[in-house]
Amino acid sequence: MRGVIMYGHGDVRVEDRERPSLVKPTDAILRVTASCICGSDLWPYRGIEKQAGPTPMGHEYVGVVEEVGSDVRTVKPGDFVVGSFFASDNTCEICASGYQTHCVQREAAASTGAQSEYLRVPLADGTLVATPGVPDDDLVPSLLAASDVLGTGWFAAVAAEAGPGKTVAVVGDGAVGLLGILAARQLGAERVIAMSRHADRQDLAREFGATDIVEERGDEGVARIKELTDGLGAHSTIEAVGTQESMLQAIRATRAGGHVGYVGVTHDVSLPGMELFFSGVHLHGGPAPVRRFLPDLIDLIWRREIDPGKVFDLTLPLDRAAEGYTAMDERRAIKVLLTPPTAG
Amino acid sequence: MRGVIMYGHGDVRVEDRERPSLVKPTDAILRVTASCICGSDLWPYRGIEKQAGPTPMGHEYVGVVEEVGSDVRTVKPGDFVVGSFFASDNTCEICASGYQTHCVQREAAASTGAQSEYLRVPLADGTLVATPGVPDDDLVPSLLAASDVLGTGWFAAVAAEAGPGKTVAVVGDGAVGLLGILAARQLGAERVIAMSRHADRQDLAREFGATDIVEERGDEGVARIKELTDGLGAHSTIEAVGTQESMLQAIRATRAGGHVGYVGVTHDVSLPGMELFFSGVHLHGGPAPVRRFLPDLIDLIWRREIDPGKVFDLTLPLDRAAEGYTAMDERRAIKVLLTPPTAG
Repeated sequence: MRGVIMYGHGDVRVEDRERPSLVKPTDAILRVTASCICGSDLWPYRGIEKQAGPTPMGHEYVGVVEEVGSDVRTVKPGDFVVGSFFASDNTCEICASGYQTHCVQREAAASTGAQSEYLRVPLADGTLVATPGVPDDDLVPSLLAASDVLGTGWFAAVAAEAGPGKTVAVVGDGAVGLLGILAARQLGAERVIAMSRHADRQDLAREFGATDIVEERGDEGVARIKELTDGLGAHSTIEAVGTQESMLQAIRATRAGGHVGYVGVTHDVSLPGMELFFSGVHLHGGPAPVRRFLPDLIDLIWRREIDPGKVFDLTLPLDRAAEGYTAMDERRAIKVLLTPPTAG
Repeated sequence: MRGVIMYGHGDVRVEDRERPSLVKPTDAILRVTASCICGSDLWPYRGIEKQAGPTPMGHEYVGVVEEVGSDVRTVKPGDFVVGSFFASDNTCEICASGYQTHCVQREAAASTGAQSEYLRVPLADGTLVATPGVPDDDLVPSLLAASDVLGTGWFAAVAAEAGPGKTVAVVGDGAVGLLGILAARQLGAERVIAMSRHADRQDLAREFGATDIVEERGDEGVARIKELTDGLGAHSTIEAVGTQESMLQAIRATRAGGHVGYVGVTHDVSLPGMELFFSGVHLHGGPAPVRRFLPDLIDLIWRREIDPGKVFDLTLPLDRAAEGYTAMDERRAIKVLLTPPTAG
């Protein structure tokens, strides 16, 4: 089969690889319908995150179950499924509390690489959620978004306690931030302030429900948020970047007693204790327990109430994945969908 | 009047000072019945926190209203009152949300020094809460505790979401940590694990409701908490120290999705982003909005349902305050109550 391998800084290749097969009786093999490139895939692409060697890429996927292990009960061959980037049993105490990304049995859901034709998913019963049927083609991008970028934006909005009567600020106008806007509005937020300086992303932010746009960043951005909120700051702030500047921007933009939901992977971040202490904010985030939200997200998509697939502004056949990495790296694309030759 | 002045590292003196008088129409003057020495008073005493010059000390107080400004409506001369260390209007949007320590009008409640015979309290209507009558003498220590150390431990327990079915770990066996134990049990926590290696504090911890004691610290302490919680960590952790080690101990002792309530003033703390991200915990804390809890705490004390005054294991006349600082600095006393000559 064809699959994407990262060789190192700027070196992404699509190669012939061995098709994954069942390893444990709890595994499933999927024929991948669509996968995509994640902002976090750019960390090794940019050489910021080192890899041990050539690595299969991709952790976002939708597909059709091809084969299941003998212990798998809840999905069967032919089912169209969505899964998260972490495999989880969905039965342990941590999963039961809604933190499937920290499942006591958790492991990478896509270690064989989702940017490929076939994928092995461990703990299939806990990890995969079947859709009500085979989706119409136009629903596929949105279902794929649910597998990570929508689920992550949704978690950020929940962690930030976005809801009725709340003003929500969103730091980061990548796919996760944009879908955080959509999530905040779905959760009932009254006002959503998108922090973005790119016209195309501002447009999508508005389409997803942003009521205000702030172009300033850092302390100037914080000052603008304060101006828009009677000097108090947002009730809820979504942080979807993961840098020192963006984390402090999020904390400073939030009123005392407010909530910061952070989902940008916090490379090289170090939070100053005294500032955090005197901010009085709630801080919650981390790798999003997407599995918690999947049933509801699939339902919203299936009923066409939300269209998160709009974040994919470039679709490429899998064999042209390297072009997709370049486009995202150069910020020419918000998010790139990849279609394997066997899809459909 | 007599009052405590800190001159610098290890130099605390009780001096004749000018009695404070009303400055604004929203002020009240209290005749102080009792005040005490706070763990945070030890920061300048130890020379770790620099002061601009000689400073009146003390921010915890109960007393009798002596005089009020022309705008004061809710307390009157003769009332016995408890107040918090921050003055707040208790009407702004931030106060209304329960974060009075971040009130838009906040200022220090005891800038004239509570370790003295008389005290000026700004924003008296918002800051002070009158008790149902003049308290019996044995209630005074508990009411004094409500003014900071109980209110702070209570906030930590609330921030940590202590409650029914929860296992709560408590890092720090000072007065705040000990009263965090009391608060966690009052809030319904099933199990409270006190981290303490001092026999006298362990005894008080048990008296306040601790079900388990862990003597180990740091990573060993975390390992013991995990052992006691099926390998998962506590649901809720109260952090009442404020050092880098204690903050990391609290975060690591908490399960993913759990809550850390931190109230130790985080001097020299710097939280590593990646560890916080992958911990999956909720983090909330800061200067406790004691005012939020005062009516309920006064009620519990008045009905003799709780006896937080037990944290005072040394009572001294105000003129011997320096001995009290030494006793707390050397950990010979948990918390020292000071009685002005005019009290009673």
